[in-house]
Amino acid sequence: MTTAADSTVQSAPVRPFAQALKDAQTRITTHMDARLGGDDALHAAMRYAVTGGKMLRGFLVLESARLHGVAEAATLEAALAIECIHAYSLVHDDLPCMDDDDLRRGQPTVHRKWDESMAVLAGDSLQTFAFELLADPRIGPHGLTLIRGLAQASGKDGMVSGQMLDIAAETATRPLDLEQITHLQNRKTGCLISWSATAGAVMAGADEAPLRRYADALGLAFQIADDILDVEGDAAKVGKAVRKDADAGKATFVSLLGLDAAKKRAKTLMEQACDALTPYGDAAETLKDTARFVISRDS
Amino acid sequence: MTTAADSTVQSAPVRPFAQALKDAQTRITTHMDARLGGDDALHAAMRYAVTGGKMLRGFLVLESARLHGVAEAATLEAALAIECIHAYSLVHDDLPCMDDDDLRRGQPTVHRKWDESMAVLAGDSLQTFAFELLADPRIGPHGLTLIRGLAQASGKDGMVSGQMLDIAAETATRPLDLEQITHLQNRKTGCLISWSATAGAVMAGADEAPLRRYADALGLAFQIADDILDVEGDAAKVGKAVRKDADAGKATFVSLLGLDAAKKRAKTLMEQACDALTPYGDAAETLKDTARFVISRDS
Repeated sequence: MTTAADSTVQSAPVRPFAQALKDAQTRITTHMDARLGGDDALHAAMRYAVTGGKMLRGFLVLESARLHGVAEAATLEAALAIECIHAYSLVHDDLPCMDDDDLRRGQPTVHRKWDESMAVLAGDSLQTFAFELLADPRIGPHGLTLIRGLAQASGKDGMVSGQMLDIAAETATRPLDLEQITHLQNRKTGCLISWSATAGAVMAGADEAPLRRYADALGLAFQIADDILDVEGDAAKVGKAVRKDADAGKATFVSLLGLDAAKKRAKTLMEQACDALTPYGDAAETLKDTARFVISRDS
Repeated sequence: MTTAADSTVQSAPVRPFAQALKDAQTRITTHMDARLGGDDALHAAMRYAVTGGKMLRGFLVLESARLHGVAEAATLEAALAIECIHAYSLVHDDLPCMDDDDLRRGQPTVHRKWDESMAVLAGDSLQTFAFELLADPRIGPHGLTLIRGLAQASGKDGMVSGQMLDIAAETATRPLDLEQITHLQNRKTGCLISWSATAGAVMAGADEAPLRRYADALGLAFQIADDILDVEGDAAKVGKAVRKDADAGKATFVSLLGLDAAKKRAKTLMEQACDALTPYGDAAETLKDTARFVISRDS
């Protein structure tokens, strides 16, 4: 068993986390194949966009659902839904009028493999599909709460507003400060991570406070690690262009804190995330490993 | 009172339909101002995209809800939701990589007034907002059914698939035949009209069959009228470019049936739509006027 003390920014625990994550990817992908249907190019592009990522958000749904004894059928619907939302945001974010990225997860982005109109429409229908999944009766009586939460986390006051702030920052006369970056990243990334980590408690009608505290720390640690990867990462492993932020002179946690302090901050947040899981005892060991992985990943 | 016999493709009833539609636009717009919130550019673009249209889909929600005695609060949430879905589809459809339109409702399209990234994100968050509205507790116990229906009507097997078929038709070696055009338009337009016209019955837990029959005829009549407008319409009144389809050599109901037969077909569908409302008696008079309006509108 890996403990928090063993973990550093440099070395990732290989098991049991890596195996658990791989199992989750298989289960979510299998569920997608069963649920998505269709044999046209639109469905193919949707499937392509969801495939090949870490599926960390879906994994958080599975783990939080396991902690609360939520039924498998409901769990998989919710895990696939959040992966569809995440995938739609990436497909649209990669568009030429947005970040203009050719590579994602080491593969051509949707608008490069197909074209821009396909990227717009596949992203649109991935978002729709996510809400269709959450409206399935097998989700149980808390489906509407999940839907409302996901809409708030991903829309005009959540993820999309974070993307707007990100775009605005590029043309701002002065770089963002630490408080502004933290707010931006909470909107852009934190909200969805929080929805994912609390989904199991919501579906079970249980207290979601411990998982929310965990997610708040995890989300911020995740983004700091992302900024570190942008500086230190290997494009081949990361699967997308690196040093984009640094080259663009964009404010990041690394540019504001310095590399060493950013790593230290990520580690402190990881420890806070693990502490928040105390009420769950040993059952939350995999979620603790997730926090360790998040700050030590190389992709 | 206007009767079906008075109505032709050339003359629209001015009252009570025009007043009822105007009232609906005011109520939906007022509800949007109360519900949307926000004072940033993203919210402004969302508001702009929803404003200024006929709000025919929202009007259908209000009228079908009135027939079933659905509470005002629930009705307005659903009416605004469908207008947000419709608006998002227009904003994305107008993008340079799609239809590349500069004008919509006589005003600059969102990507012309702001930029392309704003059009992508405002469209995205309008879709999200629609599902947030439908997940509101005031919708009542049938909220999940509404959400599932809207996702199916608007996503990969509904509106978006219709847009894909439309794009594919542009590069096809032979023009679509009547059956293919009917299928495409049912996906692209019919599904959302059907959702709108049945929403009241769904919210009330009532039989939606008569309204579905009404909507099926209405949706097709609407599209035939649109094709007629593309040929006969005045760009200033229509508020967007006309003769685009004809100039592009695209198959339409008019190119396949001829102008006179298309008008006759629209009139027959209008009459079928009105007949489907018989179970509702006089209470459905406004919905009948809607069918008459749809085939006689000049914009």
